[in-house]
Amino acid sequence: MKPQVRKQIGVIGAGACSSETRTLAEAVGKEIAKRGAVLVCGGLGGVMEAAACGAKLEGGTTIGILPGTCREDANPWVDTVILSGMGHARNALIAQSSDALIAVSGEYGTLSEIALGLKMGKPVFVLDCKWEIEGTQRVKSPQEAVELAFALIEGR
Amino acid sequence: MKPQVRKQIGVIGAGACSSETRTLAEAVGKEIAKRGAVLVCGGLGGVMEAAACGAKLEGGTTIGILPGTCREDANPWVDTVILSGMGHARNALIAQSSDALIAVSGEYGTLSEIALGLKMGKPVFVLDCKWEIEGTQRVKSPQEAVELAFALIEGR
Amino acid sequence: MKPQVRKQIGVIGAGACSSETRTLAEAVGKEIAKRGAVLVCGGLGGVMEAAACGAKLEGGTTIGILPGTCREDANPWVDTVILSGMGHARNALIAQSSDALIAVSGEYGTLSEIALGLKMGKPVFVLDCKWEIEGTQRVKSPQEAVELAFALIEGR
Amino acid sequence: MKPQVRKQIGVIGAGACSSETRTLAEAVGKEIAKRGAVLVCGGLGGVMEAAACGAKLEGGTTIGILPGTCREDANPWVDTVILSGMGHARNALIAQSSDALIAVSGEYGTLSEIALGLKMGKPVFVLDCKWEIEGTQRVKSPQEAVELAFALIEGR
Repeated sequence: MKPQVRKQIGVIGAGACSSETRTLAEAVGKEIAKRGAVLVCGGLGGVMEAAACGAKLEGGTTIGILPGTCREDANPWVDTVILSGMGHARNALIAQSSDALIAVSGEYGTLSEIALGLKMGKPVFVLDCKWEIEGTQRVKSPQEAVELAFALIEGR
Repeated sequence: MKPQVRKQIGVIGAGACSSETRTLAEAVGKEIAKRGAVLVCGGLGGVMEAAACGAKLEGGTTIGILPGTCREDANPWVDTVILSGMGHARNALIAQSSDALIAVSGEYGTLSEIALGLKMGKPVFVLDCKWEIEGTQRVKSPQEAVELAFALIEGR
Repeated sequence: MKPQVRKQIGVIGAGACSSETRTLAEAVGKEIAKRGAVLVCGGLGGVMEAAACGAKLEGGTTIGILPGTCREDANPWVDTVILSGMGHARNALIAQSSDALIAVSGEYGTLSEIALGLKMGKPVFVLDCKWEIEGTQRVKSPQEAVELAFALIEGR
Repeated sequence: MKPQVRKQIGVIGAGACSSETRTLAEAVGKEIAKRGAVLVCGGLGGVMEAAACGAKLEGGTTIGILPGTCREDANPWVDTVILSGMGHARNALIAQSSDALIAVSGEYGTLSEIALGLKMGKPVFVLDCKWEIEGTQRVKSPQEAVELAFALIEGR
């Protein structure tokens, strides 16, 4: 009966994005769900919404850790909503609650999550990302991102 | 395909408790799961563990918002672990993320969650609780707690 | 040259209050400043403003830990403003950053700070307060509150 | 009597650093104090300690927002200690509470503060920093950093 511990993968990226970025994020979400992990995200639009949507299309489980206090701000693909009410400081919770992080494109908020993830010793994969941050692992496709993430955290 | 928004009920109480309190908390968890809501708790032992265990016995979904950064601190009945790393300040996240709160017995940490919940305008039900705080609703059984909680939040 | 560590006393209470409560809070702030401690508060109106004003009238130092992100929300008697941006979760920071807490009257937010302070093992003094919480020390005057607080924390 | 609002400048950098970086950070702290602003920092060692020491050498005021709950972790040059108890999430409070940020060298924690500061629309100056982040302003000396910071925030 005791439930198996499922891996939790964080997908981070901007709240508004191009349709190309959206497609990438959705594919990342699908891959995560296919492998049975829980998708953790910031719960808002853009990359967060696309990734959560992808995960739900594959029957996955999604968690959104929101900056505000209003459930209606969550995108419709988030199963469980954590209303942090703590603004940008919630970025630390997303990084901390993820076994690995996958950044898709992204702006300053994403950069803060990348940096916090690295500070916490989490594996951080970046896809189509403008920053070159030592310690992150640059990947070329959603499949590669999720494959490498699982390969790395399985042994942990 | 769009997932239905599920209610989230917070169960709060001490990390160590008597077997009587444990039995109450487990029954609260069961009732929440039977009604299809997600159980939110602090993820540790005592009341949090008993409530999460009860919810899992009925096939429910459980979320634990932990104070620390270590997944191993979570009780085994928590499906998804939020590692807040923010200590007692995480009590505010439990209150904020719950549509209603049910306190089972409890110590100072629970009292802070009761107060934060009331401050946020959440319905707060108390079961076997030593404090008489104006604004809380005293209930006599796990069934009454969950019934009243659902009656109150359904309309919202 | 090495600066001496100054005690930090938290004054907690509602953001709106009667003139009687205001007078009590101002007196508490004065006593704290007279003894050379730093006054920590939530930085908003009511008890927080009166206490900070009292401290400044005696040449003291005041810190306000605000829930929001806007400096203009701070009352004018706060020397240094911590913009937590984390809403009610900031109550935990006020409790944690204080060597002792003095509650003046107060509503639910204050009750959460009392409970968090007790959970953290801080001495908590209550003045004109409607709750009877085991572990708090009920005092009859601002002078008694501050005297007892200093007597207790001096030895620490 | 009403106290004038003093500017708050955040100095961010690693908790361990070379003596060259230390010298830069101390000079930044001195310049901030000379201009009458409050120095905000993370309260620990390395850049944070050197900057706070510099500010105190010039009679300035220093605030340390610590990740933990233990006052003894603060460096001796911090006047007022905010014990956040919220780990890396406290980086958001440093950024939010500063009118401008000056990064001296730095590692991942600093990068997260730079990113959070930019996300919040704060001016961010970087001195001897390995990252090239669009939106930051690269400066060549402590004097230039503080001069530009004040020039930018004076008008606000």
